[in-house]
Amino acid sequence: MQDSPLQSEFDLIRRHFAGMTPPRPDVSLGIGDDAALVTPPSGQQLAISVDTLVSGVHFQPSVSPQALGHKALAVNLSDLAAMGAEPAWATLALTLPEPDEAWLVGFAEGFASLARRYGVALVGGDTTRGALSLTVQVHGFVPDGQSLRRSGARVGDGIYVTGCLGDAALCLKQLQTATPPTAIPDSLRQRLDRPEPRIEAGLALRQRASSAIDISDGLLADLGHILEASDVGACLFLERLPLSAAFSEWFAASGDWSPALSGGDDYELCFTLPPAQEREMTGLAAELELGIHRIGTIEAAPGLRVLQPDGRAWLGTGRGFDHFAGGSTDAG
Amino acid sequence: MQDSPLQSEFDLIRRHFAGMTPPRPDVSLGIGDDAALVTPPSGQQLAISVDTLVSGVHFQPSVSPQALGHKALAVNLSDLAAMGAEPAWATLALTLPEPDEAWLVGFAEGFASLARRYGVALVGGDTTRGALSLTVQVHGFVPDGQSLRRSGARVGDGIYVTGCLGDAALCLKQLQTATPPTAIPDSLRQRLDRPEPRIEAGLALRQRASSAIDISDGLLADLGHILEASDVGACLFLERLPLSAAFSEWFAASGDWSPALSGGDDYELCFTLPPAQEREMTGLAAELELGIHRIGTIEAAPGLRVLQPDGRAWLGTGRGFDHFAGGSTDAG
Repeated sequence: MQDSPLQSEFDLIRRHFAGMTPPRPDVSLGIGDDAALVTPPSGQQLAISVDTLVSGVHFQPSVSPQALGHKALAVNLSDLAAMGAEPAWATLALTLPEPDEAWLVGFAEGFASLARRYGVALVGGDTTRGALSLTVQVHGFVPDGQSLRRSGARVGDGIYVTGCLGDAALCLKQLQTATPPTAIPDSLRQRLDRPEPRIEAGLALRQRASSAIDISDGLLADLGHILEASDVGACLFLERLPLSAAFSEWFAASGDWSPALSGGDDYELCFTLPPAQEREMTGLAAELELGIHRIGTIEAAPGLRVLQPDGRAWLGTGRGFDHFAGGSTDAG
Repeated sequence: MQDSPLQSEFDLIRRHFAGMTPPRPDVSLGIGDDAALVTPPSGQQLAISVDTLVSGVHFQPSVSPQALGHKALAVNLSDLAAMGAEPAWATLALTLPEPDEAWLVGFAEGFASLARRYGVALVGGDTTRGALSLTVQVHGFVPDGQSLRRSGARVGDGIYVTGCLGDAALCLKQLQTATPPTAIPDSLRQRLDRPEPRIEAGLALRQRASSAIDISDGLLADLGHILEASDVGACLFLERLPLSAAFSEWFAASGDWSPALSGGDDYELCFTLPPAQEREMTGLAAELELGIHRIGTIEAAPGLRVLQPDGRAWLGTGRGFDHFAGGSTDAG
């Protein structure tokens, strides 16, 4: 539906991203034709993932464009990390209410800065007018047979997570309540605004982990996907959940586990590991300079049992982020 | 930003598209994990294109979900056609104000029906809540060195288009004016709502056409991209523009070329052909059962000269669709 004459070529993506993301020898044609042309490596599978972020649903309209550019790419790279894939190419479909130069410069900076760290080339894009939202698609490589999937967890495997849980959700909770923004620890803000995709951990877990997922909707919901896909159950120990200092302080007063269990936006990896692999995790954590903690065990009995430190079952009702009512369903 | 507890798994894409698009042996893992896993063929390049359609900008909110599903995929396949690529995989990021079962069933039907015709598997997706918009990304294959690009037009090449021009824009014009919908010929409605990607033509033009583009923003704008990328000029003859019966009837009364020149939404191919290839076009048109018409010539002098049937220059100001103010900029 096109109803206005051309006033000027307004190629936002090309203009703002030119030279911002790294050149790659496997990109024959980037932004600027009807399609990008890339050469996938032979002997590897291509992992493809897409995520949309909508203003007011996935981020606050007041978020800085730099942080948003970072996050839009980070949440997608997090999906590649969960597959054990090495990032390669991205596309960006940007819907904006109006072209805002300063905003675009900041957004491109945040996006490209993360892209450079992982050698990701932006190869295509589309800009449209409408309510602010962004759809990023990423492509990565994983050698045949080495991908991490949700479906491989086996009875007796340990359940692990990288990093800490609940910081982003706690930050959001504080932003949404009366807490003055200045009272929110910077470490929590960083975790909400600038999640770190666990790419190196995903690559290191190839041929080690039996299953993996990234925690975007909350630990319980995402671990639930592993259990469902693997047709197993699990037992989780709350006292083993890795918590940041800021979260622990808040927890000491509130006694509320829910941001760490069902808050979402963690972008850590949750994975399962056969017992034979367990000993390697300490070395791996040191090598990656990233916490890796065992939080539970895969069991045959269906369902997820969450145990409090005193051994009683945790009966909290929050199970994760509503996949449609409040946000998104990521299906690849 | 996630602020509500999980109520139910609401995996719209998986639920509505399961089994709807064709299985492909090169898809190891489709919708349902953190990423899809596919195996690109060796010796071929991968063409990647993404397009967003926003309600009220690219389609009327009243459009049928079937037509919208078709069009969302068609406009992307049209980009692959313009590269000479063979379609393979698609992803769909759907933003909806609310989950509407009947709408989703219709949308999936329209999308999948076209996908089946071209053997396209839907391998990934994301559903989010927000103002209605859809981002589709498509992937196709083109043998190394055989892609059609915008940059290959040479002085002396003929300029060609497939099909007819202006029908979709004329239909939109009539929908937006007082014309009662019942008075709009069905052939025009079809052209606006259900554009046909010229995949077969794109494949046939490999190693023949010197450049190609799909006409999404209007002939003048899109041919302009070829001229710019190829660093050449051109001369166009208005009396050679291929027009449908319905358009010709309207033109007889209005004398207005603009929907055919700058209306957009045609999704025909515009391509250039070295003189040695010209003789093959008649046979190719018959084989494809598709009109292929020469409308002009590539020249050395920069700029685009549009000549009326009497030989005078056409001085209409409409040059195409504003790439941001009213719609989209497709950069791959």
